[in-house]
Amino acid sequence: MLTRTQHLFDDATRVVAGDSRWRGRTSPDYWAFVGPFGGFTAATILRALIEHPERAGDPVALTVNYCAPIAEGEFDLDVRFVKANRSSQHWCVELSQGSGDVATLATAVFAERRPSWAHQVARFPDARPFEEIKPFPSIAATWVKQYDFRFIEGVPTLRSAGAAEPGSAFSKLWISDRAPRRIDCLSLMAMSDAFFARIFHARGEVLPFGTVSITTYFHADADDLTKEDVTRVLAVADANTFHKSYGDQSGQLWSPSGRLLATTTQVMYFKA
Amino acid sequence: MLTRTQHLFDDATRVVAGDSRWRGRTSPDYWAFVGPFGGFTAATILRALIEHPERAGDPVALTVNYCAPIAEGEFDLDVRFVKANRSSQHWCVELSQGSGDVATLATAVFAERRPSWAHQVARFPDARPFEEIKPFPSIAATWVKQYDFRFIEGVPTLRSAGAAEPGSAFSKLWISDRAPRRIDCLSLMAMSDAFFARIFHARGEVLPFGTVSITTYFHADADDLTKEDVTRVLAVADANTFHKSYGDQSGQLWSPSGRLLATTTQVMYFKA
Repeated sequence: MLTRTQHLFDDATRVVAGDSRWRGRTSPDYWAFVGPFGGFTAATILRALIEHPERAGDPVALTVNYCAPIAEGEFDLDVRFVKANRSSQHWCVELSQGSGDVATLATAVFAERRPSWAHQVARFPDARPFEEIKPFPSIAATWVKQYDFRFIEGVPTLRSAGAAEPGSAFSKLWISDRAPRRIDCLSLMAMSDAFFARIFHARGEVLPFGTVSITTYFHADADDLTKEDVTRVLAVADANTFHKSYGDQSGQLWSPSGRLLATTTQVMYFKA
Repeated sequence: MLTRTQHLFDDATRVVAGDSRWRGRTSPDYWAFVGPFGGFTAATILRALIEHPERAGDPVALTVNYCAPIAEGEFDLDVRFVKANRSSQHWCVELSQGSGDVATLATAVFAERRPSWAHQVARFPDARPFEEIKPFPSIAATWVKQYDFRFIEGVPTLRSAGAAEPGSAFSKLWISDRAPRRIDCLSLMAMSDAFFARIFHARGEVLPFGTVSITTYFHADADDLTKEDVTRVLAVADANTFHKSYGDQSGQLWSPSGRLLATTTQVMYFKA
C-alpha cells in the first residue's frame, strides 16, 4: 500500500513500477463523462516514463493516441524503451486493462537538453492578472473541479440550442490546479488537454466529442520549471478547422513570467 | 522485380507487402545530407498503411519519431494494427534495418470520415500566384531537387557567418513536386517535412539539425483530394521557440482553392 501523496494530482497519477509492466488506476477526482480525463491519462503515462529507472533527460515530445475507452479501475502500462541515442531516448507505452486490447498508445522522446543559442519567437499574450478574474464555475465532470480556469477571452457560452453563427474558437485563460501545485512536466501535459473542446466554442453548445490524438512539446526542462516556480499557466488555444467529423486544436502554455513552457496540438472527433 | 511507376515519388516510396513485415528501401532521389529526407520516410510508412489490406478509411493523424539514422538501402516496416473502433483504426509502425534497432517509430490514426457540420476557422493566406514567382534554386540535397519551392515570404538568406540579429522564422511558399503529381495524403505527409529548418531562417545560416518528431493532421480525405485535383499547396510555417538545443515548427498546407488540407508540427534538435 502506497502512502497518499500531498496533492491529489500526484495521487491520481501514481504508478507502481514493474519491469516493463507498470500499473496505475483511474481516479474519481479526474473523471470525465465516459472515462478518465484525457490529460490525466497522458500525465500518468508520462509519470511512468519519468519514474522509469532507465529514463535519462527530460521530456521533449509526447504523443498520446486514445484508442478505446478506459473503464474505472486499474490499468497496465506496457513501457518499452525503443531506442537510445547519445543524448535522447525514444519510448513507447501501451495502456490496457485486464486482458483487453490496447486502450491508449503513446510515444515519447526524452533528451538531455544542453545549453544553446536561444530565441523565443512567439509573443507572450497580453493578459489581465489571474487575481483580477473570476474563476469559471465548475461543471459536472470531476476533473474540471480540480482546475481553476480564469478566462480572459473566449469564455464558453453554451446554450442548449447552440449559436446561430459559428463562434470564435479562440480562448485565452489562466489555468491553475484548484489546490495550487508547482507546474512541472506532468501538469503541463495534463493542462495541454484541459482546454474545453474547440467545437463547444465554435458551436456554442456541448456536443459528443473525443480527443483522438494529442501531441505536446516541452520547451522547458525540469531545471527551467524549478526556476520558474509557478502554479499557473497562461494558456491560449484555437482551432484551424472542423470537417467531416474531425477538428483540431493547437495551444500554447506560458509561464506568468513570459516563457513559453509547452505547445500542444490535438485532433478530435465530434458529432454535429 | 516491380515495374517502375510513373512518378519518382511513387517509385521512391514503394513498399513490398508482407504479413506484418513490409519492406521498402531508401531512394537516391530523396536523400538528405546524412540519410533519407524525413518526409520520404514518413510518406513511405504512410504508404505501407494505406496499402495494407486491413486498412479502412483515411489518415487523420500520423506521428513519426526519428530515433536513429537510416542507412542507404533496404529497410523493414513492422506494421501493427493496434486497435479498431467503429469508425477508426490505430496503427503502429517500426522501421528497422537488418537486425538493427528501431530507427523510426510511428503511430497513425485512420478514420472513415462522415459528413458533418463544417467550419474552416483558419484564414487562407494571401499569396501571389505560383506562376508569377521564380523557383527557389536547387541546393545540394537531392530531395530538394524533387520539389519546386516558390517563396512568397521568408525566402532563406543563408550567409556563412549567419545573421547578426535573429531573422523571422516565418515562411510562406508554394510547394509542388518538381514533376507535377496530384496531391494526395502521401505527398501532403512528405511536404509537411519539406520546409527548410526554421533554425536556418532564424539564424540566417545552415547548422546541424535533425527532426526528432513530426505530427501531421489530415483535414481532407481521399475524396476531398481527388475533387481538389491539384499539384501544389500553399504552405506556411513558423517557429515558437528555440531553447536548449531544441526548437519547434508548425505549419499549414492549403489547396490553391483555399481549403486547409493538413496541419503539421515538429520538434527538432539543433546545434548552435
